[in-house]
This record gives sequence, C-alpha cells and structure tokens, in this order.
Amino acid sequence: MGRIDPAKKYFDPSITDRERAIFEGGITLGAIYHQFVGIPVTKNKKLAKILEKVITETMKIQPYKTDVKVRINLKKLKKSGKTPYSYETLKGEHLDVKVKTSYGKAKAILRMRYIPKLNYTLMYVEKVTPKKP
Amino acid sequence: MGRIDPAKKYFDPSITDRERAIFEGGITLGAIYHQFVGIPVTKNKKLAKILEKVITETMKIQPYKTDVKVRINLKKLKKSGKTPYSYETLKGEHLDVKVKTSYGKAKAILRMRYIPKLNYTLMYVEKVTPKKP
Amino acid sequence: MGRIDPAKKYFDPSITDRERAIFEGGITLGAIYHQFVGIPVTKNKKLAKILEKVITETMKIQPYKTDVKVRINLKKLKKSGKTPYSYETLKGEHLDVKVKTSYGKAKAILRMRYIPKLNYTLMYVEKVTPKKP
Amino acid sequence: MGRIDPAKKYFDPSITDRERAIFEGGITLGAIYHQFVGIPVTKNKKLAKILEKVITETMKIQPYKTDVKVRINLKKLKKSGKTPYSYETLKGEHLDVKVKTSYGKAKAILRMRYIPKLNYTLMYVEKVTPKKP
Repeated sequence: MGRIDPAKKYFDPSITDRERAIFEGGITLGAIYHQFVGIPVTKNKKLAKILEKVITETMKIQPYKTDVKVRINLKKLKKSGKTPYSYETLKGEHLDVKVKTSYGKAKAILRMRYIPKLNYTLMYVEKVTPKKP
Repeated sequence: MGRIDPAKKYFDPSITDRERAIFEGGITLGAIYHQFVGIPVTKNKKLAKILEKVITETMKIQPYKTDVKVRINLKKLKKSGKTPYSYETLKGEHLDVKVKTSYGKAKAILRMRYIPKLNYTLMYVEKVTPKKP
Repeated sequence: MGRIDPAKKYFDPSITDRERAIFEGGITLGAIYHQFVGIPVTKNKKLAKILEKVITETMKIQPYKTDVKVRINLKKLKKSGKTPYSYETLKGEHLDVKVKTSYGKAKAILRMRYIPKLNYTLMYVEKVTPKKP
Repeated sequence: MGRIDPAKKYFDPSITDRERAIFEGGITLGAIYHQFVGIPVTKNKKLAKILEKVITETMKIQPYKTDVKVRINLKKLKKSGKTPYSYETLKGEHLDVKVKTSYGKAKAILRMRYIPKLNYTLMYVEKVTPKKP
C-alpha cells in the first residue's frame, strides 16, 4: 500500500499487521453475506458470472482488499422457467468466496464456504503471513 | 405471457390485469431499494455499468417483469482514491430505475427516482395500459 | 388519510385509489423480504417477537401503510446451542406477513407467505375494497 | 466458552486467540452495516430502542460474541410526519456499535462509528486482550 493509514490512530496500538489484515477480511466476508443474500438467481452461467464480478468489484472497494474471488455454486440452484415462480434467492450455501487483504507487512486469505459437516456457511482465515504472529 | 399463472387463485378475484401489473412492479421497486442499498460504490463508469446490469438481470427473474432499466447517477458519487476510505455506499438517491411489467392484457411502467422537491426517493406508476381501469 | 399527497402528480393520472393501495403494499412486501432476509435467527420465541415488532414498526413508516402484521414461523427454525454454529439466517419461507394499506377510498390487504405447492414465498393481494375496480 | 470449536481445523493453524477474537468481531461489524442499512427510521426514541435491541439480539447469535451494544443517533434523523414521505432510511452514520468477542484466552472490543474527519463510518479494533499479540 505504502500510503499512510489515516484511521490507524483509532485502533488499539497493540494491533499487529497480521491482526489488521485479518480484521479487514472479516469485515468483507460479513458484508458479502449480508449484502448479497436474497438476490434472485437461476441456474444460468452468464448471470452467475456477472453477479460474481459485481461482488468482486464492489467489495474490493473496501479498504485493504487486494482481491476478492467469488464462485456461485450453480449445481445447488434450480433451473428457471416452468412457471414464473421457478427461481430461488441467493443463500450463503451457494457462495464460495476468497478475500485477499494486505496491511503493512502482512497478507491474509479469508474464506467463506458452506461446510456440510457443520451445516453452516463458515467464514475462516485460510492463510496468513508472516507466519509468526 | 400466455402461460397459466399457478398463483392466480391466491389473489382476490376482483383484481384486474392492470392492478396485477402494478402490484408486481411495486414488489420489484421495493426489492431493488432494500437489496442493493449499502453496496460500496465509486465514481467509476465501468463499475456502474456492471452493477446496473446485475440489478437488471437479477430483478428481471421476478415474475411478470418484461424489462428493468437501471441508471446509477455517477454525478452524485465521490471519486475514489485519496485514502482507502474515500468511497460511498449506494443510496436510493443514486438510483433511477424503470421496471416494466406485463400481466394478461395490461402493461405497466414503474419508476423509482430521487425527487428533490420531496427530498425522497419516490416509487411511482409512470404509465399503465389499457387506459381504462 | 385526509392529507394531500404531494407525490400524486408523478403518477399516471388514470391510477385509481385501489391501484395505488395495491402498489404501496407491493413495495412494502418487496422491501420486507429483501431487507430482513439474512438476519441470524434461532427457535426463540422472545427473539421472534421483537424481530416481528421491528419489522412492523419500521415498515409502517413507509407511506400509506395502516398496519403490518408479521409472524415468524418458529417451527421451521433450528434450536440454538449445541455448537456456536447452530443457528440459521432468516429466509422467505419463515415469514408470514400481512400489510394493510389505505389510499383515498380504497383499502388493501397484501400478503406474503410460503406456499408449499409452489415451493415459493408468494406475495399476493388478499383483499381489496371497494369491490369494483 | 469452554466448548470445543468444531471449526478450528479450517483455520490457518498459526492463528492466535487474539486474532480469532478480532476476526469474529470484524465479521459482525460488516454484517450489521450491510444487513440493517436501508431500514426506514424516524426521530422516535421507542423505535430506536427496539431496533437497537433487535440488532443486539440477532447479532449476538453469531459465534463468539459476548455482547453487542448499539446506539442509533437520533440527532441525525428527521422528524416524521409533515407528509407521508418525511422519513429516512438507516445509514452507517446513524450507527454507533460495540461488539465484544471472546475466544480462548482473548477478548476484543470492536467498534463502528462515523468519524467526521474521515467522512466515513469506520470499523476498528478498540481494545484487545491479552496485551501481547
């Protein structure tokens, strides 16, 4: 980034770069779920592609994001068409998201995906560097 | 549409085609506002274009929509960039939306746009046919 | 209402009071679904009661609403507790909503509820008066 | 908590308790903003109180939250009433939120509030313990 962070002074001074990178990623995962769940969707590849792109491009605007990768799981979606009511709305279980953040010397990869064993759309820290906290 | 509406029986039988076309458009205007408000945005034409397209394509999935036109008013948005915090989130006043619906013999054009005189993002029925209720 | 409607002039002049009452109700049903879907919920009566009350009180603020009744279907929700991940987020199928609107001489009751036969959370016009469109 | 965390194995093993507490708080701040922004509101104390309570009670359901305090800044809101269109919808700048999390030996206080100097609703880590990362 190189840029000075005008918000740094509001943070607990004991915060490390790793912690900040993780924090910024957590915000974005929570934001993606609660902003986009509810959107009408069908088993349509083109539609999925542009929705993935919009999630990526709008969420990358949030601070300290270096990339946001989104995959909408079409297998779990209904085909559209038989009646005007044959469609679904986006749920957490349809989403597989990777958010990459960078703050100071730290980089983090944050993930959201449905975990069948937990029956839950889990948000977790997939990888963070440097390795020492 | 030509297709039989499997939900018709749930409606008050006195409902006319005009009323149904208007109802379906009202739903979509309410949906657009409350689904998309809050998304991070910047004064970026490309971003606006894909966000407009996603609103169009996902909201057209809702029943009895024939078209959904969306314009995001870039003039009202901040430029991104000076700091990581230089961006806004989408508000009703940024949106100009036209929803076209069709039910039986009726067609309606529903509109949402910010009206300065009311200081309010108004949703209204711009045009409906046939002319006799 | 008795009050003059400063937005009337933006509407197609052929709109009847019935049509306007129906339109205002459609907006609110679309708004409720797309605003509140995604909120964390558990099989907890007290929680359901306050969430129902918030939906009622905030959505009644929208124009020409006389009442908004909301019931969250607890039977369809998971018990909380075994692990920190044992909860769900609100879906359309959990909601049974009645919106009452009034405009000029017309009154409408609009409904949203899950219809198993359609496998769809239907929004419909339950009743509207006067009986003649 | 004392309970075993069935999701721990999905996380990068280098993650500390502090980092996890911070992550869980970030998720909830992002969730609150993007779930609740857009709700109709007026300068009404009772309404603010129940909306604050609903945000608290539903967001505390998310994992590893010990408390969620919410204050809606009524000063920034319009009085309702002159016309049916005299109200606003909730924006980030109306919110002052404290999320408290606990994971293993760590506790964190996360905050969201509007910072006039940044013209931004900042989410930040107000305090985290133990003091050594």
